[in-house]
Amino acid sequence: MKKILNRTEDIVSEMISGIIKTNKNLLKVPEFNVVYNKNFNKKKVALISGGGSGHEPVHIGYIGKGMLAAAIAGEIFTSPTPDQVEAAINSVDSQKGTLLIIKNYTGDRLNFEIAQQLAQANGKQVETVLVDDDVAVENSTYSIGRRGIAGTVFVHKIAGAKAETGAELSEVKRVAEKVIANVRSFGISLNSVYIPSTGKQSFTLANNEIEFGLGIHGEPGIKREKIKSSKEIVKEMVDLILEDLDYTNSEVALMVNGLGGTPEMELFIAANDIHNYLQTKNITIYSSHVGNFMTSLEMQGFSISLLKLDTELKELLDQPTEVKNWK
Amino acid sequence: MKKILNRTEDIVSEMISGIIKTNKNLLKVPEFNVVYNKNFNKKKVALISGGGSGHEPVHIGYIGKGMLAAAIAGEIFTSPTPDQVEAAINSVDSQKGTLLIIKNYTGDRLNFEIAQQLAQANGKQVETVLVDDDVAVENSTYSIGRRGIAGTVFVHKIAGAKAETGAELSEVKRVAEKVIANVRSFGISLNSVYIPSTGKQSFTLANNEIEFGLGIHGEPGIKREKIKSSKEIVKEMVDLILEDLDYTNSEVALMVNGLGGTPEMELFIAANDIHNYLQTKNITIYSSHVGNFMTSLEMQGFSISLLKLDTELKELLDQPTEVKNWK
Repeated sequence: MKKILNRTEDIVSEMISGIIKTNKNLLKVPEFNVVYNKNFNKKKVALISGGGSGHEPVHIGYIGKGMLAAAIAGEIFTSPTPDQVEAAINSVDSQKGTLLIIKNYTGDRLNFEIAQQLAQANGKQVETVLVDDDVAVENSTYSIGRRGIAGTVFVHKIAGAKAETGAELSEVKRVAEKVIANVRSFGISLNSVYIPSTGKQSFTLANNEIEFGLGIHGEPGIKREKIKSSKEIVKEMVDLILEDLDYTNSEVALMVNGLGGTPEMELFIAANDIHNYLQTKNITIYSSHVGNFMTSLEMQGFSISLLKLDTELKELLDQPTEVKNWK
Repeated sequence: MKKILNRTEDIVSEMISGIIKTNKNLLKVPEFNVVYNKNFNKKKVALISGGGSGHEPVHIGYIGKGMLAAAIAGEIFTSPTPDQVEAAINSVDSQKGTLLIIKNYTGDRLNFEIAQQLAQANGKQVETVLVDDDVAVENSTYSIGRRGIAGTVFVHKIAGAKAETGAELSEVKRVAEKVIANVRSFGISLNSVYIPSTGKQSFTLANNEIEFGLGIHGEPGIKREKIKSSKEIVKEMVDLILEDLDYTNSEVALMVNGLGGTPEMELFIAANDIHNYLQTKNITIYSSHVGNFMTSLEMQGFSISLLKLDTELKELLDQPTEVKNWK
């Protein structure tokens, strides 16, 4: 596997150097792979998220007015450490408190919660929410309970818009939890990825196989099938989401999320099929978001996320943000 | 090669259906794979671009206030036809005239120029500019003279900002030509791509090889080398650009453009090395633009574009646009 990099042990730090040099509003915390918005308004609740690297633009790419205040990058597919998370909390030091948005992986959950306790012991107001939008599997090699995947970006966007209104921490947390309660995702993959530090493939798939319900670290999904048409794949994915939550007669935000190596062309073909299929189910798409929002290195494939909307969520979703990776 | 699609003959039309359904400001011209901004202000000069598909978000993804008015999608890696281009001109029908931004490929040039003549014969004011920013090769299987690659997106952005001021066609064309005169690009690839309609690879590379100077259709470049470090690759690419145009003591806009299958992580590692290397050359980076701007299906690799800036170009580059793929 060929990659554009220097030493494998420097991948994350050099990536962050590249992000900082090319984004004038971002700063790095010395000694830590933690990035924050240098213009953050301390009178607003600070939203912070993080996790293993290899899922870019998650999470650093969502820092900016209207979304995250800071983000933490662990090593590739590896949870950040508690001291990293604590450094992120301190970097923005909101007077209104901090909401940690955690994807439900065992290591992330543990380390973010330790950081929360450390910060609370230092007198800081810190709350957490746990995103577990992936309907594919109940438990995995990385998680107890459902995994957090691309639906997390809806939490960043909508809770970020709420924080931007000047709302209190409890209110921002309430909105984040409303998004989590109403978003479901499902992903498929066409190939595996190579982990640069080990040089190994995360899993193997035959030339004509796709993996249904895999995770963003290449954790296994629910089944393997022969590749079929976009229409058929999309129907199967959407049906699994609809089985899990009743979207009948509701308005939804749709995210079609590329996993990193899939051309945008294919994401739009899938988006077309999803729009057509949801129409037959009497589900109205209020807004669509197509692109690489939460990737898995160069993995080919995509996930579908459906967020059930009410008036409050629609208004917050529509608020402007300066984050360029939101679209 | 596994892809998310239905019938290969429907790829482009289904992609466009997906784009239209997920973007409320865009409309398609009936019978043609042409998309336009339904809110286009006819009192502004209309910028139109187009080319073969497979390079998304080029060009439809750049339609919106401050960039393109309309765009034309040919079949994959295939020039649009003159009647498509004419349909695009008619779709927005600017009172101030139309500027066609053509990437320098033989088919594109021919068909856009025929369309220009047809539209002029119908009394329309239509000018063209030709982008040939790729310093790698003088002629190729697709072009006579240099090819147009990712630097084209700078033309969309800057000439689009000029058009938005209400400037006359001649002024918008002058600015577009200034960008073209001051932008140079160079690309490398780590792999080849499969053309869905033929099921064939565009070229082959050994497991440890990279292609220097390839084109966005997989046309050959100037040489093949063993994969080396990002620092070494970047130095070689930048040196070839600097040999071609004198950037000494100037301010530049940098574009690090992913070719579709390269993780963002690697683009930022390369961006870090480019920033470090240009500093040793006394070239100041005014702004950086990192992402998948002009792709080649799922190709892994990237291109570097350097645009030499003056006060006028800086001001126009900084103007807001509603196009979400510009970042």
